[in-house]
Amino acid sequence: MMMTDVLQQTLKQIQPLNPEWLARAQARLDQLTKPRGSLGRLEELAAWYVAVREEMSPIIRKKAVVIFAGDHGVVAEGVSAYPQEVTFQMVANFVQGGAGINVLARHVGAEVQIVDIGVNHDFPGMPGLISRKVRYGTGNLAREAAMSRDEAEAALLCGIELAQENIAAGADVLATGEMGIGNTTPAAALAAVFTGKPAAAVTGRGTGVDDHSYRHKVQVIERALALHRPDPGDPMGVLARLGGLEIAGLAGLILGSAAARRPVLVDGFIATAAALLAVRLCPAVRDYLAAAHQSAEFGHQVMLAELKLEPLLQLRMRLGEGTGAALGMSLLEAGVKIYREMATFAEAGVSDQD
Amino acid sequence: MMMTDVLQQTLKQIQPLNPEWLARAQARLDQLTKPRGSLGRLEELAAWYVAVREEMSPIIRKKAVVIFAGDHGVVAEGVSAYPQEVTFQMVANFVQGGAGINVLARHVGAEVQIVDIGVNHDFPGMPGLISRKVRYGTGNLAREAAMSRDEAEAALLCGIELAQENIAAGADVLATGEMGIGNTTPAAALAAVFTGKPAAAVTGRGTGVDDHSYRHKVQVIERALALHRPDPGDPMGVLARLGGLEIAGLAGLILGSAAARRPVLVDGFIATAAALLAVRLCPAVRDYLAAAHQSAEFGHQVMLAELKLEPLLQLRMRLGEGTGAALGMSLLEAGVKIYREMATFAEAGVSDQD
Repeated sequence: MMMTDVLQQTLKQIQPLNPEWLARAQARLDQLTKPRGSLGRLEELAAWYVAVREEMSPIIRKKAVVIFAGDHGVVAEGVSAYPQEVTFQMVANFVQGGAGINVLARHVGAEVQIVDIGVNHDFPGMPGLISRKVRYGTGNLAREAAMSRDEAEAALLCGIELAQENIAAGADVLATGEMGIGNTTPAAALAAVFTGKPAAAVTGRGTGVDDHSYRHKVQVIERALALHRPDPGDPMGVLARLGGLEIAGLAGLILGSAAARRPVLVDGFIATAAALLAVRLCPAVRDYLAAAHQSAEFGHQVMLAELKLEPLLQLRMRLGEGTGAALGMSLLEAGVKIYREMATFAEAGVSDQD
Repeated sequence: MMMTDVLQQTLKQIQPLNPEWLARAQARLDQLTKPRGSLGRLEELAAWYVAVREEMSPIIRKKAVVIFAGDHGVVAEGVSAYPQEVTFQMVANFVQGGAGINVLARHVGAEVQIVDIGVNHDFPGMPGLISRKVRYGTGNLAREAAMSRDEAEAALLCGIELAQENIAAGADVLATGEMGIGNTTPAAALAAVFTGKPAAAVTGRGTGVDDHSYRHKVQVIERALALHRPDPGDPMGVLARLGGLEIAGLAGLILGSAAARRPVLVDGFIATAAALLAVRLCPAVRDYLAAAHQSAEFGHQVMLAELKLEPLLQLRMRLGEGTGAALGMSLLEAGVKIYREMATFAEAGVSDQD
């Protein structure tokens, strides 16, 4: 099946960063009143932002966290410590502003958008919720394809559209957020396929299953991989088989942002699986990603290593929702402000190194 | 010589944290709509803040970074890559708002105060600068005592007073900032005395000396230690001998904050040496400290290990000024907001773990 025109066009727009912009930005950073390089990763973030935007003095006016919510048929296998209804309950919590991501987004001055891309529940008249449901949750990947290839494409396009809408509304930086009871299982399955590692090397305990349930979870993923024999060279096929509607949405958000030269902060296990998927669809997209936080979830490091991304924060968080990405946005903004607002040696009349 | 009454009284007021407050705070954190413990260090910071303040729902209204600036006679030995005049030039830069700490403090919504505790320069009519000069820089510790015991006490008391003044003005959280060309040398000397390690194990390159100068810097510190034979059991004597007027001010700020039950964010090499000094004067003060950032400066980890503090951030920064502490304040505030603002399972109608 052919990929839609929008997807094709988006992939074509994504170009690797031009290192000349990094060098230009570093030249300015080296004139600021500090020993060269002494603001470490804040300087790297600033130079990266300049190169992503291809502007000598880009500002961050608007930051958006886009949360995709979806359900997972694989919960029938008992892979999660929480019942499926928590997905829709948490969607309501997001809309009301009471979840962790709401608090942290307010803290860093970012907007939060909540997208129903595949929750197994109807939300009649819930203002503040963006309804883009592709289907009522995925199929059980241990027994059937999570979704059809058309559905996978629709979910990916939904993410691209959300990026485009946010950027049209002024977003300078985007962050990935997600909610979906059971979603560490498809994320681990995707990680296994795209890193070539066995399921046990990339599977963690999610929101808190015990030893017995953990071994079962690994077996469920192994069974799914044996059933579908996914081809890593066909990322859309892998996505359709192993799924995750919100994972597809996140991958689309990443692709759409990169195509419009906007950086994306990616945080935990689910978001990084989506990033891996996006990179398999278009390797250059990796240049537009920053890893905000290293999750406590086992297997996350394996994915970050595959992407050659070094996380900014290590706070032992494992909540998801985009909580790590929101905090990472604030560090990016700090770096950009350093770049824009610090005085140079000449401006401040400070002597440079001997 | 007897310690002044203010110092004695301050040390007596500092009590270890009561673990019951930590448990009470954790009980609330466990009711919030997230898997238990899934916000990792943000939860720890929130519980810590509750225990420091001994209030069930403490807020952070005002944050202050207090920067102590002082000069160092030891620069005569060629231990710094920058000339001494940079200390006073940077003080002017701080007052004008153009330095790294100004930018980051604005970013996190903290006030900045600049205290001349011992700069080798006069600042006639510089509004915004707090003048508390104890002397015009320290003596050269490689050849003489950095300061007298009276001066060391005066500098420590200056820090205590700054804490008291800030807290009287509403500061809920304080952060340590410093400026002083050459100050990694006395900081390393203090670190060697208080950790019992050889100078080479706790000395780094500061703002950027080369290999040859680095070996020389270690030798200067070894010479100072051989000359003064400082007694680790007499922290005020160690301070007077090896000095750092701004280091004394920072230690006083830490003690004064802890005495009034306010947390202190400590970041880099200099600030952590001051924290070690404060802990040697009063071990319970350690409970009021958070390590904001692990400096790229070699030897910082040794001090953090001695204090049993785990840094919140590792961003390869090595600027000082309180830049890491400012970023750490924002994480503390994020944790406190999580604690105060997130909905509980009951409030949000979300099902808890099976």
